[in-house]
Amino acid sequence: MSTKNNLETIRHSLAHVLATAVLEMFPESKFGTGPATENGFFYDFDLPRTLIPEDLPILEEKMKKIIEKNYPIEKAEAPIEKALDDFAKAQQGYKVEIINDLKKEGNERVSVYKIDGFVDLCSGPHIDSTGEIDPESFKLQRISGVYWKSDEKNKQLQRIYGLAFENKKELDKYLKRIEEAEKRDHRKLGKELELFMIDSTVGLGLVMWQPKGALLWRIMEDFWYQEHLKNEYELVRSPHIGSRNLWEKSGHWGFYSESMYPPLEVGRSLNELKETKDEKKSFAKEEYLLKPMNCPFHVILYKSRMRSYRDLPLRWAECGTVYRYEKSGELSGLTRVRGFTQDDAHIICSKEQVKDELKKVTDFIVYMLSTFGFKEYNVYLSLRDPKDKDKYAGNDEGWEFTEKILEEVAQEKKLNYRREKGEAAFYGPKLDFKIKDCLGREWQCSTLQFDFNLPERFDLTFINKEGRKERPYMLHRALFGSFERFIGVLIEHFAGAFPLWISPIQIEIIPVSEKFNDYAKKINSLLLAENIRSEINDKNESLGKRISESEKQKIPYILVVGEKEEKAESVAVRSRDSKEQNVLKLNEFIEKIKKEIAEKK
Amino acid sequence: MSTKNNLETIRHSLAHVLATAVLEMFPESKFGTGPATENGFFYDFDLPRTLIPEDLPILEEKMKKIIEKNYPIEKAEAPIEKALDDFAKAQQGYKVEIINDLKKEGNERVSVYKIDGFVDLCSGPHIDSTGEIDPESFKLQRISGVYWKSDEKNKQLQRIYGLAFENKKELDKYLKRIEEAEKRDHRKLGKELELFMIDSTVGLGLVMWQPKGALLWRIMEDFWYQEHLKNEYELVRSPHIGSRNLWEKSGHWGFYSESMYPPLEVGRSLNELKETKDEKKSFAKEEYLLKPMNCPFHVILYKSRMRSYRDLPLRWAECGTVYRYEKSGELSGLTRVRGFTQDDAHIICSKEQVKDELKKVTDFIVYMLSTFGFKEYNVYLSLRDPKDKDKYAGNDEGWEFTEKILEEVAQEKKLNYRREKGEAAFYGPKLDFKIKDCLGREWQCSTLQFDFNLPERFDLTFINKEGRKERPYMLHRALFGSFERFIGVLIEHFAGAFPLWISPIQIEIIPVSEKFNDYAKKINSLLLAENIRSEINDKNESLGKRISESEKQKIPYILVVGEKEEKAESVAVRSRDSKEQNVLKLNEFIEKIKKEIAEKK
Repeated sequence: MSTKNNLETIRHSLAHVLATAVLEMFPESKFGTGPATENGFFYDFDLPRTLIPEDLPILEEKMKKIIEKNYPIEKAEAPIEKALDDFAKAQQGYKVEIINDLKKEGNERVSVYKIDGFVDLCSGPHIDSTGEIDPESFKLQRISGVYWKSDEKNKQLQRIYGLAFENKKELDKYLKRIEEAEKRDHRKLGKELELFMIDSTVGLGLVMWQPKGALLWRIMEDFWYQEHLKNEYELVRSPHIGSRNLWEKSGHWGFYSESMYPPLEVGRSLNELKETKDEKKSFAKEEYLLKPMNCPFHVILYKSRMRSYRDLPLRWAECGTVYRYEKSGELSGLTRVRGFTQDDAHIICSKEQVKDELKKVTDFIVYMLSTFGFKEYNVYLSLRDPKDKDKYAGNDEGWEFTEKILEEVAQEKKLNYRREKGEAAFYGPKLDFKIKDCLGREWQCSTLQFDFNLPERFDLTFINKEGRKERPYMLHRALFGSFERFIGVLIEHFAGAFPLWISPIQIEIIPVSEKFNDYAKKINSLLLAENIRSEINDKNESLGKRISESEKQKIPYILVVGEKEEKAESVAVRSRDSKEQNVLKLNEFIEKIKKEIAEKK
Repeated sequence: MSTKNNLETIRHSLAHVLATAVLEMFPESKFGTGPATENGFFYDFDLPRTLIPEDLPILEEKMKKIIEKNYPIEKAEAPIEKALDDFAKAQQGYKVEIINDLKKEGNERVSVYKIDGFVDLCSGPHIDSTGEIDPESFKLQRISGVYWKSDEKNKQLQRIYGLAFENKKELDKYLKRIEEAEKRDHRKLGKELELFMIDSTVGLGLVMWQPKGALLWRIMEDFWYQEHLKNEYELVRSPHIGSRNLWEKSGHWGFYSESMYPPLEVGRSLNELKETKDEKKSFAKEEYLLKPMNCPFHVILYKSRMRSYRDLPLRWAECGTVYRYEKSGELSGLTRVRGFTQDDAHIICSKEQVKDELKKVTDFIVYMLSTFGFKEYNVYLSLRDPKDKDKYAGNDEGWEFTEKILEEVAQEKKLNYRREKGEAAFYGPKLDFKIKDCLGREWQCSTLQFDFNLPERFDLTFINKEGRKERPYMLHRALFGSFERFIGVLIEHFAGAFPLWISPIQIEIIPVSEKFNDYAKKINSLLLAENIRSEINDKNESLGKRISESEKQKIPYILVVGEKEEKAESVAVRSRDSKEQNVLKLNEFIEKIKKEIAEKK
């Protein structure tokens, strides 16, 4: 039966086969649970000793033998009390716990599946016999420790993860993709290319940028600012802390405090605090919060004076560093951090201007992503859940208007979008752009969101043509999402071999020997004068070693210069991307590279 | 006698004359103290009613009469017990308190000075008679409330401030300077020019930058980065919070916590905090601190790998926003804030490289200040107090070497510096540049400091030519000091009329009527294409009003365009600085302005 033999069923059966093999190896095993996963399966065990990686091939062999023997996978049903009794007798305490939970839920019967000597509590479905599994289609991947029921008060079990696909070819393809992803891992490359570091002395999730990373950032930021000015945005700047009152008024402290750092309580120095303890409780107390968002500051700037319809649309951009408290277990390199810089902007406009502004932002996003080399992305249109209207800010009219107009823009701009009901933020509908990188992975980056919450809470208005107060529309948007995440994705997408125009070092000049250092310096000055980022490697090391070092640093062009080149005013150019070496006249090379940089390829 | 009649003595006597006048007006007055000040004098009174500004001219008149009458100012000495008795009888409780303090200090006699009916406890000296005062040389300035002995637990007294100079001419000069300073007040201009705002909703001392201010900042920052790259600095970036451990290791938490915000305690969400209260005290706690300085992050970056003499000098620059807790009473506009962005850099080098690096930094400072229009500054060389060596980090050899070399550089660079013994930071000697603005006021901006503390605490080393570990020298430096303060000083120095090259809006185009909007747009596009910051004012307002608005905004050039200009492809140029109006061919004007921008005049 096709439903029975589908990949998920096979993966689930493989978990049972794994458990059968583990039982053979450790007859005293206690069994947790073992489901299918996105790429295979896992099973949790309580074992007499800690597993080592060398156990995995042994277990794989045992699994293959179980498959070869083509044991039937037999289902049986039993009254719940009998099952309780059986598993208790078998000293399978975890299973007993599960059966008790099922009993509490009102179940009267349970099903078990049997392979050879191994009987497992399981609702199935499974394949009919182990022989249906392709023995080359799976692989045990790794071992990790997990708490029973994910509760750290419980005992730690050992989880074995397995991969399983349709056949060996699919498995190999997946393994290759993992291997490639590991090579591209931005945490690994960030270290090798000396772009950034995260150090527990400073704090988890807090990124420090080394010179090459900070230069890359600056290049991106510079481009970002230029493009924003061209697109008629204005810049604003706000502090990293704001009074608790501000965050209470904005609603962030009420709805979002879980993700915020706790308040800083000031208003007196620490010594004053010590002195006044229990004495002057009435002393004015101020509390500040690290900003998790830039929005409330922009709102305060908007309110700094009366605005007229003539002032709109206002487009205010800021690269603002925000701090959000993520659990340490959720942190990962540049993509999940505790401090990150949003390339934020808020657009405040009248109803008539909304559509035009949305189109402009959409164009801007598409332009920005494609300039950085991302041509593919999935777009998600997040709408409110019409069954649960109460949980949203704003009114029906506003939601209907903005949802409709967002969809119109997505259609007119021919975006390949997916509607997601109930996925809108409580404050408004949104359009999210998830970049697809060269391995087909999705990364949430650009976003375009309506906000009904802040304009209401801060009573934003403008004087319309009729001289009356009117509530403006407010849009949040980010093109990169955050610099940290976008740089992380760039590193992985390009495996660290950044496009020429953003490469921190664009050209490495390598004189074949000390005699040609002067010529190298001359070239360097010429390049620097053209704002081309070059450096010389005249270290006291062999030519081969220096070339290989530059290649490891993924520098786009290496210029090797010796006697022939100096005489001919030329350079031997090694291109990172074409792997070719050509000799070019120096001025020819400079023209060529200027053109390439300008084209941002 | 010259010493007796010097300005300070006259000012002090004027305080007594003021008190004599107040006694006439309020016979029940109680007297605090009344010294000379930098620009005049003040006296503190406990009076039966609150003074109003209208009281000041009345008191001035009374003072002039006292001067006219040429009362002698008579000194008398008395045993301290008699004085106590006399002042107690006169119901002058504040004076009694002072005499009691003098008694505790061991004094046996005190002196009093008498003018007409007013007898004051005072050690003098004074002029011989009130007639020696030029009646046109002083002016009562303002009234303010102060606590007796500056202690808020005490009663609040009323302080009357007076100005006094050699003669009327000097007084008028001073009054004019105050008036000018008030016109240039960056807090006032910041509002008028819509550069920045500070709002109690967000928090005192926390600056929010409006579009024109943020653009000015960006222009300065952009120039700053370009110059740093030209000067062979590398960029780095660090977060705004760091673990408490980091700040303990750096010594900041120990020595500097008074100026730091209190720790952020994290490691669990607020809900988790509530749940675990009094339960799991052992749960790992993390504490973070808002950075008051960038240095420890740069040190951690330095330590990310082994460094060799080949890597030095390292010059690492960062515009890093730091937060320091200042008492609210000390905050003032952009010059005393709680959050500010240091234009920071750290230079880490070998002993042999120190002098060369110091010279480069000195040149860089002078270049930067003069590019922004500051040609005058006072330089202070802060040295350690050789009598109190224990309070400094580092050793004698290091201090002697760095103090000597700083002074050599100051001399070789022909800086007009002043030596200040005992003014060094505990971590090292320094060279401070205080800008003199157009009113002759001094502003601490650029600084160049050695640091013996961090290299020791973090055990910074490099491998020298001999293959051995060596301790590098570490320099902190800032050119602007902070963006906030420097912009504040710029606003005051130029009274908001920024030099063309940094003006947020360089050119305002004003069509005389709607008919010429297209020509205005054409000019605008041409200017924007040349990266010249222009905007059009085609508001539905009279030409005169629009010109005057642009003038108030202190825009360097206003281009008025009408029929004549359109036909001739020309512009009528009104220059902010020359106050002239000239008609120029459009292309001529563009060339002229490009040249002026490039020259940074």
